[in-house]
Amino acid sequence: MWRDLLPIGRDAASGGYRRYAWTGADADCRSWFRAQAESRGLTYETDRNGNQWAWLGDPTAGDAVVTGSHLDSVPDGGAFDGPLGVVSSFAALDELRARGAKPGRPLAIVNFGDEEGARFGLACVGSRLTAGQLTRDKAHALRDGDGVSLAHAMERAGYDPEAIGPDPERLARIGAFVELHVEQGRALADTPHPVGVASAIWPHGRWRFDFHGEANHAGTTRLDDRRDPMLTYANTVLAARKKARLAGALATFGKVAVEPNGVNAIASLVRGWLDSRAADEETLAAVVAEIEQAAVERGGRDGVDVRVTRESFTPVVEFAHDLRDELSKLLGGAPVLPTGAGHDAGILSGVIPTAMLFVRNPTGVSHSPAETATEDDCVAGVTALADVLEGLACR
Amino acid sequence: MWRDLLPIGRDAASGGYRRYAWTGADADCRSWFRAQAESRGLTYETDRNGNQWAWLGDPTAGDAVVTGSHLDSVPDGGAFDGPLGVVSSFAALDELRARGAKPGRPLAIVNFGDEEGARFGLACVGSRLTAGQLTRDKAHALRDGDGVSLAHAMERAGYDPEAIGPDPERLARIGAFVELHVEQGRALADTPHPVGVASAIWPHGRWRFDFHGEANHAGTTRLDDRRDPMLTYANTVLAARKKARLAGALATFGKVAVEPNGVNAIASLVRGWLDSRAADEETLAAVVAEIEQAAVERGGRDGVDVRVTRESFTPVVEFAHDLRDELSKLLGGAPVLPTGAGHDAGILSGVIPTAMLFVRNPTGVSHSPAETATEDDCVAGVTALADVLEGLACR
Repeated sequence: MWRDLLPIGRDAASGGYRRYAWTGADADCRSWFRAQAESRGLTYETDRNGNQWAWLGDPTAGDAVVTGSHLDSVPDGGAFDGPLGVVSSFAALDELRARGAKPGRPLAIVNFGDEEGARFGLACVGSRLTAGQLTRDKAHALRDGDGVSLAHAMERAGYDPEAIGPDPERLARIGAFVELHVEQGRALADTPHPVGVASAIWPHGRWRFDFHGEANHAGTTRLDDRRDPMLTYANTVLAARKKARLAGALATFGKVAVEPNGVNAIASLVRGWLDSRAADEETLAAVVAEIEQAAVERGGRDGVDVRVTRESFTPVVEFAHDLRDELSKLLGGAPVLPTGAGHDAGILSGVIPTAMLFVRNPTGVSHSPAETATEDDCVAGVTALADVLEGLACR
Repeated sequence: MWRDLLPIGRDAASGGYRRYAWTGADADCRSWFRAQAESRGLTYETDRNGNQWAWLGDPTAGDAVVTGSHLDSVPDGGAFDGPLGVVSSFAALDELRARGAKPGRPLAIVNFGDEEGARFGLACVGSRLTAGQLTRDKAHALRDGDGVSLAHAMERAGYDPEAIGPDPERLARIGAFVELHVEQGRALADTPHPVGVASAIWPHGRWRFDFHGEANHAGTTRLDDRRDPMLTYANTVLAARKKARLAGALATFGKVAVEPNGVNAIASLVRGWLDSRAADEETLAAVVAEIEQAAVERGGRDGVDVRVTRESFTPVVEFAHDLRDELSKLLGGAPVLPTGAGHDAGILSGVIPTAMLFVRNPTGVSHSPAETATEDDCVAGVTALADVLEGLACR
């Protein structure tokens, strides 16, 4: 099952995955999902937002236990982020059947569309639409780097973009959602536990820093006559790291755009995007304010004007405490840990009881071809998920 | 004359010029040059490398005095860099005629093609080809950002790319070349002199710094587990400025490329291009070595591998001392000053006696729409150039 999925959307040069929403690679992943569902005699369907579902039991009976994740990837992403959750869901279902377990509630496996937002810039589009956190009009307005709209891309992939929107009836039939995911850090790596339970998703946001200087000739302009925004940017990158470290938070500049971006031209404009996260919203706000202050101060010395725009913000997500505690108990006291990453589970937690399981990642690397988990830990993840499904649906 | 040239290739949004080699804007500039030549009864021709010439007197007589510059621009460049030299050449010729001067040597005005290298990445292509500093094969292999080859672009513009190459016969007919150019710094700005004479072009080069780290998730990777090349890059930008300041040299990072360049992804690779220049080659080598050392040291702390590639290097250009001293004398003791910028005059100085005149630039800004010179100073430049041409050709 895992082996069939591995080659899809893999770039030969980087070894990373490029499974972007509504592309050919995405369609191949979707065909794989449908084949897995049908080969197990599950009831297959896609919802109005293009999310795929495979049902054991009556989809309309209500109080369903749902598990799953996503199959799309970031640019040159790894094999585990997303697919491990979907593959483990099918494997856990096989394990339940092997155990002879008899579910008293409907069970379903879901593949949410466009979780990573790699193509259209917004993450968790499939779950956001379903949960009513993204309107149809806003979704239609999303465009990829080539100017293709989400609506057009969905249509080309054979879906009806006019049908997308909130799906409260579907959500009302779900009693619990559990997403298994490879851990994206090293909190479990130094413990004897292959599987952990999520407590919360840290609040996080994106801020665009625009550093406006003055274009000039790099070969003739005296240093004292320059207004070079690259210097202010560089100082801000280092300040961000320091402020985050002191606050126990995270701050990253991973994306930059420079104008005119010429080797012999002092930049007129440097844009840097700050991704920052912290355990609570006060800490996050304080860290970002300190970084902005450092940028403005240095900009004053460089003759550079600094403007900061918050492009997105996601408040803290606390997963349902009852479900979290029940899962930890079902797993014999698995550690409970927070994460800085957004997930479909985070979107749905506002609407239905939701939990997450993390499978240990020895390097902590994710969003990279180096992302990995040992075979033993993946098996432990499947067993844990089977235990959870059995505990929730079969008792 | 100036007014006709101003609107060509000007971008309405930025107010800057986008006159790239062998584009429509370039063709319009060339038509303007031809019209100026023909309206004055000058003998117009283009050479095998697409440079335009306007002759007063017999082009084949030998020992000619040539002046001129270029009409192309950097992205969003100013109105003066290049065009001021060409316009001033025609105006100086008008002035000579008004004075009733009788040239004893042929005079010519030249517009060298593709001086800025904005489209194909190599500066001074027209003069390099003519001087034999660029082979036909290497020129043919140049490609623009859309993958269009120089050969194809020339052909589309109506020139024969097979004919390009060294033109020693043409150069042998030139006794002196004088290029007038707007100053690209503020050395004259604080003096009473509107015009200066160039002593030398500083040695300069481009070095590509590749910072190799590890892609990872910006929201989940602990700071201690990161190998973030953006930090090493940022530190190197600041180190470059400091090392250059201490050595009295110039160092600029104006171009950056990041992979994967995602907001929530720690970069795997940051490429930064260093442009550095100094008064002599020893100082330049020392500054670049210090910057590289700073990068490697910081890289060691960040877990980032640093590789440095020298992409280009131009040794110091000393303009012909006799001609330089003669010009300064003809101009009543105009100041003699070096520059950090490359020019067609720098290319030709290896083959024929060459000099440059600089017209005062109050802000020192160049390669930007803010580049300027006062009308009085432009007139002073024309008078100075007429004095020089008269002194060289009419005595």
